[in-house]
Amino acid sequence: MGKVICAGLGPGDAELMSVKSDRVIRNATHLAYFRKKGRAGQARSIVQGMLRDDVTEYPMEYPVTTELHFGSDGYRDQMVAFYEEWADRLETLARDHDVVVLCEGDPFFYGSFMHLHTRLQGRAEVEVLPAIPGMVGCWNALDTPFTWGDDVLTVLMGTLPEDELRTHMQRADALVVMKTGRNLPIVRRALQDTGRLADAWLVEKGTMPGQRVARLVNVADEDCPYFAIVLVHGQGRRPEAAQ
Amino acid sequence: MGKVICAGLGPGDAELMSVKSDRVIRNATHLAYFRKKGRAGQARSIVQGMLRDDVTEYPMEYPVTTELHFGSDGYRDQMVAFYEEWADRLETLARDHDVVVLCEGDPFFYGSFMHLHTRLQGRAEVEVLPAIPGMVGCWNALDTPFTWGDDVLTVLMGTLPEDELRTHMQRADALVVMKTGRNLPIVRRALQDTGRLADAWLVEKGTMPGQRVARLVNVADEDCPYFAIVLVHGQGRRPEAAQ
Ligand SMILES: C[S@@+](CC[C@H](N)C(=O)[O-])C[C@H]1O[C@@H](n2cnc3c(N)ncnc32)[C@H](O)[C@@H]1O
Ligand SMILES: C[S@@+](CC[C@H](N)C(=O)[O-])C[C@H]1O[C@@H](n2cnc3c(N)ncnc32)[C@H](O)[C@@H]1O
Repeated sequence: MGKVICAGLGPGDAELMSVKSDRVIRNATHLAYFRKKGRAGQARSIVQGMLRDDVTEYPMEYPVTTELHFGSDGYRDQMVAFYEEWADRLETLARDHDVVVLCEGDPFFYGSFMHLHTRLQGRAEVEVLPAIPGMVGCWNALDTPFTWGDDVLTVLMGTLPEDELRTHMQRADALVVMKTGRNLPIVRRALQDTGRLADAWLVEKGTMPGQRVARLVNVADEDCPYFAIVLVHGQGRRPEAAQ
Repeated sequence: MGKVICAGLGPGDAELMSVKSDRVIRNATHLAYFRKKGRAGQARSIVQGMLRDDVTEYPMEYPVTTELHFGSDGYRDQMVAFYEEWADRLETLARDHDVVVLCEGDPFFYGSFMHLHTRLQGRAEVEVLPAIPGMVGCWNALDTPFTWGDDVLTVLMGTLPEDELRTHMQRADALVVMKTGRNLPIVRRALQDTGRLADAWLVEKGTMPGQRVARLVNVADEDCPYFAIVLVHGQGRRPEAAQ
């Protein structure tokens, strides 16, 4: 009897994964990970050079990514079938041995693994190893304290409606916007409208090879990387205040 | 010529620190950490058993903690003097060798080290190693996905005014409240007023020995641990939706 172990990978630099995830991945004999069809896969790239020679790999290839809108029925149906199929396969595999599932960042923080986690309840033993979320790697790349004192931090998805983005941007001190991609023009406009644009940074591929850090005002609208995060620092009570 | 390396420790379980922090701490010959006067210190306890025999330790003892209100002049003056003294000492030490400073959770996320980071700019080389924030360890302890789809996550400090707590609790999907302590009754009331109390959890000492997980409705008002986090999960678009 094995179990399904979801190992959080952290933001990208393999040295930033936890001691525990590192050990579990190096010992894995059965390893699954999500990827786009025809790609090596970001999660798989992070663990390159860490795996046993005799590992068996299970790439879980998304049936769709951006071809269909995520709100459409077609998208939903295909994704449901995909998650159900892999929940079945992982359940079966875990009858005989541990299966390690890789997950970028922290698994419970907007991670795809959660769709398998829900489906596997009561069917297999599941263990989730926490990790540094991508946003933490990104603010570390800016080498500046991110939140202080009583700062309010709000994390937003670039896929939200513009008026919701604006409302939250107005009220929070520190801001994180994930899933920017093709929504970057809307995110930028909302930041502009709420007076936050001048303080916004874009971090692409935080802590990874090819990391890029830029002030958002200097990023072109056409330039909308998916694997990027927008950050606005809190100013808090500093540096005279404590904790 | 050395540098000041602030090693993030993560939520508490030593196996959850990064491979990099783990290595840096095991090799440290000069080690500084914050603590309350007369205490072992939480950060120091986490690294127990990992240190070299010949390490020199520098406990940085807070001159005040909760005896004075953090808004008072007395509190501020003493804390400023404290941070200035330690910035001077770390600058001097780093002239000869690396000094490792321990920090619970992620250093740039409401961490005390930031007050030294600011003061050391231009005076010493400073490197900060990111880590899993305490809240991530706490939501992992609940073994349930924390944020999904387009969920908005807001992180609040229990030290905020009640009306601000309420406004943010109303608008966000997932909630984190840190620095609960003696503010727990106010936090609870704000959750109640915004209809979130039934879904709130308290996690004390997440991932540490003595970890405690309880529904907030079952926690007494007098029972206000400082090292605790209140969590309300997002419900997102699940589990039919993707990513
Ligand atoms: C489906 S979410 C997964 C989040 C992940 N579980 C985490 O904890 O960060 C994908 C989004 O994470 C963000 N992201 C995660 N890691 C990143 C990194 N190292 N650099 C830039 N963006 C990152 C991007 O905004 C991307 O659109
Ligand atoms: C000054 S903040 C430090 C935050 C830290 N830098 C981090 O990344 O989590 C202290 C607060 O963190 C929260 N905290 C951090 N780690 C925790 C844990 N393992 N369990 C419970 N609360 C924790 C508590 O709310 C505490 O009041």
